[in-house]
Order: sequence, then C-alpha cells, then structure tokens
Amino acid sequence: MVNSENDGDASLKLLLEAHGSKISIAELELLVEGQLAAPENVDPDCWMALVASDPADELCVALRSFMAFRKGKASQTTTTPEERITALRTELHRRELGGFLVPLSDEHQSEFPPKRAQRLAWLTDFTGSAGIAVILKDKAALFVDGRYTLQVREQADPALYEFCSISDNPPGSWIAKNGPKGCRIGFDPWLHTKTGLAQLEEKCRPAQIELIETESNPLDAVWEDQPPAPLAPVWPHPVEIAGRSAEEKIAETAATVGGYGAKAAVLTAPDSIAWLLNIRGGDLPNTPVALGFAILNASGSVELFMDDRKLTPAALEVLGEKVSLRPIDEFGLALATLGAADASVLVAPTSAPVWLSRQLDASGAQIIAKDDPCVLPKACKNSVEIQGVRNAHIRDGAALCKFLAWLSKEGSTGDVTEMSAVDRLYGFRAGGENFKGLSFETISGAGPNGAVVHYRVTPETDRRLEPGSIYLVDSGAQYLDGTTDVTRTVAIGTPTDEMRDRFTRVLKGHAAIATARFPIGTSGGQLDSLARQPLWDIGLDFEHGTGHGVGAYLGVHEGPHRIAKRSADVPLQLGMIVSNEPGYYKAGAFGIRIENLEVVRTAQNDGGKEDGCEMLQFEALTLTPIDLALVDAEIMTKEEIEWLNKYHARVRSTIGPLVDSETAEWIEEATRLLTFPNRT
Amino acid sequence: MVNSENDGDASLKLLLEAHGSKISIAELELLVEGQLAAPENVDPDCWMALVASDPADELCVALRSFMAFRKGKASQTTTTPEERITALRTELHRRELGGFLVPLSDEHQSEFPPKRAQRLAWLTDFTGSAGIAVILKDKAALFVDGRYTLQVREQADPALYEFCSISDNPPGSWIAKNGPKGCRIGFDPWLHTKTGLAQLEEKCRPAQIELIETESNPLDAVWEDQPPAPLAPVWPHPVEIAGRSAEEKIAETAATVGGYGAKAAVLTAPDSIAWLLNIRGGDLPNTPVALGFAILNASGSVELFMDDRKLTPAALEVLGEKVSLRPIDEFGLALATLGAADASVLVAPTSAPVWLSRQLDASGAQIIAKDDPCVLPKACKNSVEIQGVRNAHIRDGAALCKFLAWLSKEGSTGDVTEMSAVDRLYGFRAGGENFKGLSFETISGAGPNGAVVHYRVTPETDRRLEPGSIYLVDSGAQYLDGTTDVTRTVAIGTPTDEMRDRFTRVLKGHAAIATARFPIGTSGGQLDSLARQPLWDIGLDFEHGTGHGVGAYLGVHEGPHRIAKRSADVPLQLGMIVSNEPGYYKAGAFGIRIENLEVVRTAQNDGGKEDGCEMLQFEALTLTPIDLALVDAEIMTKEEIEWLNKYHARVRSTIGPLVDSETAEWIEEATRLLTFPNRT
Repeated sequence: MVNSENDGDASLKLLLEAHGSKISIAELELLVEGQLAAPENVDPDCWMALVASDPADELCVALRSFMAFRKGKASQTTTTPEERITALRTELHRRELGGFLVPLSDEHQSEFPPKRAQRLAWLTDFTGSAGIAVILKDKAALFVDGRYTLQVREQADPALYEFCSISDNPPGSWIAKNGPKGCRIGFDPWLHTKTGLAQLEEKCRPAQIELIETESNPLDAVWEDQPPAPLAPVWPHPVEIAGRSAEEKIAETAATVGGYGAKAAVLTAPDSIAWLLNIRGGDLPNTPVALGFAILNASGSVELFMDDRKLTPAALEVLGEKVSLRPIDEFGLALATLGAADASVLVAPTSAPVWLSRQLDASGAQIIAKDDPCVLPKACKNSVEIQGVRNAHIRDGAALCKFLAWLSKEGSTGDVTEMSAVDRLYGFRAGGENFKGLSFETISGAGPNGAVVHYRVTPETDRRLEPGSIYLVDSGAQYLDGTTDVTRTVAIGTPTDEMRDRFTRVLKGHAAIATARFPIGTSGGQLDSLARQPLWDIGLDFEHGTGHGVGAYLGVHEGPHRIAKRSADVPLQLGMIVSNEPGYYKAGAFGIRIENLEVVRTAQNDGGKEDGCEMLQFEALTLTPIDLALVDAEIMTKEEIEWLNKYHARVRSTIGPLVDSETAEWIEEATRLLTFPNRT
Repeated sequence: MVNSENDGDASLKLLLEAHGSKISIAELELLVEGQLAAPENVDPDCWMALVASDPADELCVALRSFMAFRKGKASQTTTTPEERITALRTELHRRELGGFLVPLSDEHQSEFPPKRAQRLAWLTDFTGSAGIAVILKDKAALFVDGRYTLQVREQADPALYEFCSISDNPPGSWIAKNGPKGCRIGFDPWLHTKTGLAQLEEKCRPAQIELIETESNPLDAVWEDQPPAPLAPVWPHPVEIAGRSAEEKIAETAATVGGYGAKAAVLTAPDSIAWLLNIRGGDLPNTPVALGFAILNASGSVELFMDDRKLTPAALEVLGEKVSLRPIDEFGLALATLGAADASVLVAPTSAPVWLSRQLDASGAQIIAKDDPCVLPKACKNSVEIQGVRNAHIRDGAALCKFLAWLSKEGSTGDVTEMSAVDRLYGFRAGGENFKGLSFETISGAGPNGAVVHYRVTPETDRRLEPGSIYLVDSGAQYLDGTTDVTRTVAIGTPTDEMRDRFTRVLKGHAAIATARFPIGTSGGQLDSLARQPLWDIGLDFEHGTGHGVGAYLGVHEGPHRIAKRSADVPLQLGMIVSNEPGYYKAGAFGIRIENLEVVRTAQNDGGKEDGCEMLQFEALTLTPIDLALVDAEIMTKEEIEWLNKYHARVRSTIGPLVDSETAEWIEEATRLLTFPNRT
C-alpha cells in the first residue's frame, strides 16, 4: 500500500471520528464495494448517509476520493470464456457433479439482477435479459427466446455452447437428450422457483437424470472478483407520498395471511417489501428497491432480513415496533422455527426460491401456495399515490414536450442520432423536481431500428435520424411520487402514406383502450383485442402485450394485472395503473408504438340505469402530444377524433403553462384541433 | 298374468322366429325397458331393428303393442320425499356411513343424464339441470346456483333440506361445518371426477371428515323401480356425412396418444366415442349418442365397452377390425390389464369418473392427465361436415321462416301462447328432411319471461303473447347432417324505444363478432368483449357467455372452445362451430337474445401484406331474418348496416326459393334494405 493511501485513510478516519462515526477503514471498504456493486444513483453521494449524518464538505470530498480510488482498482477480468467454463467444470468435477444449471436471475427472480448475480453474463458473455445455460461435462447449451437469436451468436462462443431456442428446444428436453443416464446435474436452490424446477424435473426424470441442489454455488467458487451484494442506501418513503402508513399495510396484509389459515407469509419480492414497510433503496437498475427477505406474521409483526449496513438512520427509525431487523444469515433459522411450530406458511410458487420451500418442508411447515399478499394491495394505488403519480406525469410531460419541441427543429437536420436523442431527453428529465433516475433503459429506434421491439442503442448500432423516416422513443423516469413509462413515435420529415395508415390504426387501437368502459370484474385479457382490431382488419398484428402494470416509485413492470392475450384472469381494479401501448412493426422499415399510462377509475355516470352494473374506465396519466403528422383522419371515426382533440386539449392546458415559450408554441401547434373530414 | 298377454306373447314369439330372431320374451322385455329408459325418438319404431331386420307390418304392430303394454305398466312411484330420504339413511346406517353425496350427473358427466341416473330428482324432487345434495344422519342440504334459487324452493321439501347457494356456501364448506368429526361420508366413485372430489376433500380433510367410496350406490339399493340403463339403438353414421372414416380418425387420435408417451387413452365422453367410431345412438335427451366407454390404444386399436343389445346389425358391421366390442362389466378388467403392463394412460381429470383413476392407480398404471384426444379434432369440422351443417341450416332456416311468418300474422291476436308457439315451430321443423328431433328443449319466453335466461315453459307458467311486448324463442334441431341452435327476438305489436335501443345494441355486439377478423391463435375469450361493448357503453351487460361450441349431429354444447369471459385460452380453429348469442335482460320486463351459429374459416384476402398474419373470420350458418321492427338504424354505423343488409340478402336468396309463397312474401318484407340515416 502506497504512503499516500495510508495518509489518506488516516485523515479520513479522523474526519469520521469527528462526525461521531465508528466505522473502520476496512468496514468502509466493504461498504464502498457494496455501492460499486449497486447501480449508479442520480445522487452519487447518497451513500454517505450510511457513514455519517450531515457530513461536512471535507468529509464528502474524502469519501468521494476513497470511492473513486476503489472504483479504479476494480480489476478488469481477463479470463476467456473457455477458461471460465473450464474452471467451472473443474469445480463441478470436484463436487462429483456431471453438470450445472446457470439461470439468468437472482434469489428474487429480478428481471434485471444486480452485478453479483449476473452469472450467465460472466460465464458466457451473453447479456440479453432472458436465458439459461446448461453445462455438462463435454457439452453445454445456451437457451434464448426469439428476441436474442442474433445477439447470442454475436456474444457467446459457438465452440463452447450450442445455441437453442428456449421454446422449440427447452432445457429439460435438451438435458434428457444429451445428458448421460444417471447424470447428476447441480442447481443452486436460491436461483430456481418450484414451478421452474418442476418443469425441468418432468423431463429429466424419465431420462433418469437427477437434479441435485448444491450447498453453495460452484460458479461463485470460481468467479474471482465476483462483486459483493449491493448495499445501496435504504431510505424511508414519506407517508405523505405513500398515502398509507406501514402499520396500516402490515395490519391489512397480516389479516390476509390469517384469512388463509396461515401463520405467516414469506416475502421474497423486494418491491413487496418496499411497499409494505414504506422504504426505498437502490439495489436494482432503475428500480428503487432494497434486496432482502421478510416474514410477515399473521399476528401483525414483520421480521426483515436485510444487511443493516445499508439502512440509513432515518430508515432504521421508521421501521418501528412492528418490524424487527435481522441479519440475512438468520433467514434459514427463522424458517426452521416456523416449521417447528407446525405452521402453515404462504409461499408463492412462481417467485420464491426452491431453497425456501425445502427449508420449510424439512422443518415440518405446511406450505400454502398463494400469491404474495402484498401484490394486490400494492397494485391498487390509493388516492394519495394517484395524485402523486399525476404530479410526476405532469413534470415528465413537460420534459417530454421540451424534448419533442427540440426534436421538431433538429430531427431533420441529420445531426441527431439515437444516442444523442437519449442524452438530450435525459437532460430535460433530470431537471425535474423529485427526479430519481430513469425507470428503464431508453429505447431509441430510428427508421428500421424502430421495428426491433427490444432494440437498445449501443455505440456500435447508433443510427442517425433521417428525413422520410419514423423515430420511436420509449422512455420513463422514477420520481419520488411516481413512475413513468411513455412511448412516442414521430415523423422525421415527411412520412409515407403507409406509415400514416399504420400509425393511425395503432392510434385507433390505443383510443379503443383509452375510452373503454367495462364492468367491475373485467380482466385485461378481455380488453386486449380492442387494441388490435384496427390492425387485424387488414391482416396485421403486433407481437407483444398491450399493457403491463406499473408501480408507484417502484418497478416499471408490476403485476398482477396486464392487458395481453393471456392475462391470468386478473380483474382490473380501481387504482391499478396499466400501460396502453399497441404498436406495429415492419421489419427492416419502421416501428410504431403509442404508449400512455392509464389509471383505472370509476366510470363517469351517464344517467345510470336501475339494472346497470358498476362500470370502470381509464384516465390517461401521460400528457404529451401524439404526432398529428402521422395521423390520417380519413380512417378515424368521429368519436376517435373527439377523443384525440380532448386529450390534446388536456395536454395543452396542463403542460403549456409549465414550459418555456418556444416549447409552449410547439405544444399549441402539436395539439391543434383535428377536424372530422367530410365524407360522402 | 292374464291370458291375453300370454297369447299375445306366444304369437309374437312366432313372428320373431319367422323373422329369424332368436330373442326370448324375457330378453325382449328387458330390451323394451331399455327403450323406455331412453328419451323418446322421432321414429318410435327405430328400436325394432335391434330385434329383426326389415320387420313386416304384422311384427311391427305386435312390437308396438308389446311396448305400449310395458309403458302402461311402468309403476307410478308413490313414495314421499321423506320416505325416500329415510330409506336412504337406513341403508347408509346399514353400511356404517354417516352420510352420502348425491350429485346430478352420471358416469359420463352428461349435462342431461338418462332416467336411470336422475338420482337427485328422484330423491329430492328438484329437477334443475345443476345441483348436488349432501345427506347426513340428521341433516341434509341441497346446493344450487343462481338460476334455481326459486325453483328449488318450489320443488324440494324445506323440512328435509337446507337450501344453499353453491357458490356462497359450497358443499365442502357446509360439510366441514355440519359434519361431526370423524364422520364417514360415502360417494359413488362413478359419479364424481378427480377434480370435483379434490375440491371437496380440500375442505373435509381439515375438519377430519372422510370421503369413502362406495362399492355400489346405496341410493340405487333403495330406489325401487329405478329405470335400467338406456338401450336406444346405435346406427352407423354414414361416412359421406362424417367426411372421414373411423379408421382414419382412430389412426390420428392413436398417434396423438402415442405422442404423449402413453400406451392408451380412456374415453368416457359418449360424443367422443360416437365421433371416433362414426356411430350414433339415442341414450341422452336431444343428443344422438350411445352411452359406453372405450380404450383407445396408441397401437391403433379400440376396445369398445357397450351393451351389445343396442347395436344394430349395421353398426356391428361397420365397427370393423380395429374395434373390439366388449361387455361393460369387462371395463374394470381391461383397465387392470393396462396397469399390469405398467402403462401410461391418458385420463381427463375434469370428466373421467374417479372410479377409473383408482382402478388404474391400483393396478400400477401411470396416469397422464390430459384432455380426451378426440375433443379437438371433433371440434374442427372437415369440409364435408361443414357442407352438411350448411345444408341442415338451410332446412332449419326454412322452418324458422315459416314459423316467423306465421307469428307475424298470429302473434298479436292474443291466441298464441309460449307453448303453442313451441308446438307450431316443432311442426314446421319436423317436416324437414333428415330431421332427427330437437337439439334441446325450446326456450319460449313472452314478455317478462324472456328476461329469465334459463326459462322453460310449463303448463303452469305458459303465457300469452301480447301486443307491445317482446317474444324470445331459442330453439334448435338435430339433422343427420348437422345440429342447429338459433335465437330470434321479435316484437309483438309495437315495441318501445327502450326495447329498440337495447335490441340494436345487442345486434351491434352480435355484428362485431360476426364481422371479426382475427389471427390464428386467437381464443374466444379475446373476442368476448366485442359482443358486450355497445351495452358496456351505457353501463349494461349480460350474465352469460357469448358463445359455445356445437357438434355436427352431436351435442349442441360442445367444447373445447367458447366465447366467454374466461375461455381457457383455447384458440379458435378452422372448422370450429360456435354460437354468437349476446343478449340483454331487463328483469320483469323483457329479454333479448340474437343468436346465429358461426363456423370459423380463413379470412378473405384483401391484398395480403408480406408481413401480414394468417387471419380467420366467421361465416354465419344460421339463415333467418332479424326483426327490423326492433332495429334503430340511428345508433348503427354504416358498416353494421351494410353487414345486416348483406346477411338479409343471403337469407332472401337462399331461403326464399324453398318456401311457400306466403312465407316468401314475408321474407321479402323482413329482409328489406335498411338505409343509413342522414346525420348532420
């Protein structure tokens, strides 16, 4: 260790002591590594609250320097894919295993796992957001869905991995065909769900192949420099924004647990825990949650298993009497204790890790397979949350209008690329109050890139916006009071008639959802076709769902409801937020998507009938103009044009006053009245 | 026995011998009782083919007399409900059972079971089409759904039975609450499915109540004069109408069975067996099927377990090499043999009797829980079947037009009642070629009776048709080449504006389904809301599904597809027939339903796009005018009016030439062009 570091550390220690902090340099090092293992925060200094309250400038400077130094030291892995799979096979051999499963997700089935859990990417270099690898002694395969057929071939080594379509040649079938009889294939019970494992076992068993749970993960054993678990700071979520206290939510969900005849429910979803306890963190990309587990007792108490190093003093304070904080390594013991009492325990079979169920089974508990009791109340936002989400959308709308106003001038010049547009849009958003970062990585697709539904721009693929093309931008932000997700498709220069026809049909489908009135009990699946019909009428369709649920300063993808062909029959309820995002994609040419977020509310009464049903409808939260250059009024009905004009009037009156005069002028033009064409 | 009977029997015996028939009088008696246990056939002599080929008039007369005598002898049960439940309780006590379950259905889960299986009606006098009774030592309960809340109180004795809502207070919960701990409740394993039983056990087990399968049915033991199993004659179904040979169907479904890795599939659904083997019977009301079981081997052979007395020589002949006929009492042995070979066997858990699964389990077979392999191919009619169904609908349409023409004159006179209308309509149908009876009991609802969705007219409820009201008639027939099901709602005299508004909204919903174009893979559940939206728009709805599948000279209710809020995600496929029957019901006032049958066919191409999907659409099979007196063109779109005019033109040109001049005149007027109103 060089002298300057020692001196730096020594003076840092003095500063810390002066602030009343007892943290040692070694502990600080671990804490900082935990920050580096977490996604970057809009406020890069926020972690300092874990070290000292109200740090003086001098301390902040020293801590920044400390972190920068550790960040620079982070080693650049120079192993090859072949070296990594060889190391893993050696370890498997040592453990007498004939193979191993490497799924993409973590112990929480996170859609975007933290660095520590990015095992599939470390092993194979494949970085898509879905997939699984199966490693046998002499063979290995990488399973991906249709979105990543090209990407996997560009990233992973075909000499090491057979590339399989996860739908046509799923892992279970491949194993049954390629695994020798009697083969023992290991799996990490923290990374698989009961449901997922059962599907694999269904195929493996007839082929006499055993799936063996491993005590520790063999891949972790050979992954030198595996990042630690993320330790992003955890804050209390103000009750003035949450609208309900944690005590109230705990009492309600505990009663639900008791209603099933269960003693407790195990919570493994970080967003459920965040919602329940009114806390927010930063352990996952673009999602303000803290990783951990919880046991919610029917008696009304909660045991929270979380690394206490990441809880700020403010968070510790609000956890209150009902929540006892325990180290994560006591989780197993707590589960065993439940079982010893012969308890019935709620566990969600599609999201809880197998490890959990096996702990409970082994200790004698009765597992009741039911959804996490937080899922439904979390989805039904209360009126305070809804008002907060509206406010966040007004700010977000202003940012988007500024961006689109700018794009209306610059888009055709040839100076704008997909990446520069992403940066520009970010800049407009970052200026907004309560802004906490993006809610997902922006999709920015110019011309034919817009037709690739999952497209994410990289420096290699970055494309210039050109006149005569369409530009699609799907983006969203996290605000303390709400989560946004919006897609606008704009013409750059003059669009073709075909573009206008398809855009208008997508718009008609969007309008059908936006104006739908439906009885209580209706599920999203019952409404999905309304968004597709104008395309179906000419033999076209789009290959994704019409809408997904959205959290309130939580995940941008949230269940249990959705608007899709198969929607699991979950009724849409008051307060649920759902996206309304039909689209149309012409491969190699252009992509269209028109997305607003909607909130479910009671339908406005229109002279109610004595034999009528209670009806619901949507209210658009997103407030941004829809590009009239792409709208062909000739194929719209009077009702659709009325809806569009009404929506645009709302945008004009709400956002207009909040922006600079240039943007306000653009809004006036962009929201001009569309007239109903005279038809014979 | 009186002398005349002996003489009659003796001369009958001689006639039989003269025809080459070896049947004894005693055997003839049993055969006739089997006919009396089956529903009446449009051809009351058809059973005679089971006795002798081509019987001379003299023999026919003698056989008719023989049957009439036996029919007259059929005893009138004079037991009271109290006597019956007491007798049952005595038998239960003798068998050391503390209770017994009495469901409505039979071993085949038939919607309308044969007389022998009408145990619930015999015991309780309740004759609704759904329900179950639970008999305990000192208590008993009768569980019905919303349709029968009033009916059960009118029919069953409240002193003997507690009446429960099957959804609010289901049997399992009631048993758990009312059954003493340790109670042993019997059930007939032939009458319950695995799925149904599991639901009951889920509630009974925690209450320490055991469900015990009985060797024989204790209710049968005390039901004196319980009818025997029906023995309606079984005929071959001509391959010129079936469109595919039984050999071909057996080969295809056997391959499906093999594809699941199973050795055999057990078939318990009579319509599956009828379809597979190209046979038709008459054991169930309005449905031309023969009760029996079958084992379909993956090797391509079929074992048919059916009472051979009901197979006509023609049917026996066509069963061919691939089908071996075996007595029903060898069914258990055959299942045990499967198990002894350690076979995997396909069994449908929602329709196969528990007895079956337990036989297989006990003998070591592996049960694969999957739908019957006949269900899907049966639903997808081939082109020959479809042409036959079209032809049947033309005949049916002619009958309906004659009826509606008659009604247009007589309906307002006050001389027509619900029952007289039913009879008149039957008469018009019975004159049609290939007519084989009704496909279900006609629903004939005048005025407020139309609002009762499940209403069936009886002499007690029969109501006169009155001017200023609406009349709803839902009826259908069996033809050798197709099954029909159609609902028309007509104004008697002058309808109110409200009636016209609601009717037109139902019509708009019907039109939305009729004109829908949708991609391959779309399920009925995705289309259901299209039929409801015009009602949803004003806060109204209807409380039944939009459509059900229909067989081809088989059941009028056929799966696996449907158009309903929850449709089990079964995609609509080419050749599927489905009803399109939205409605609206104003309690105490009127009921509206507009039903056509539709067949799924490839969408007509309209300049196909290179990136388009394969689309499907419906073709209306039903051809009968829709009452223009109830149509308010003011709230219809141009497209809807065009659809109606096009449909009516089809009716006019197809049916017009086939009917008498009076009816043809009526058709001209009833199908007149509707003009699109001028709107400002």
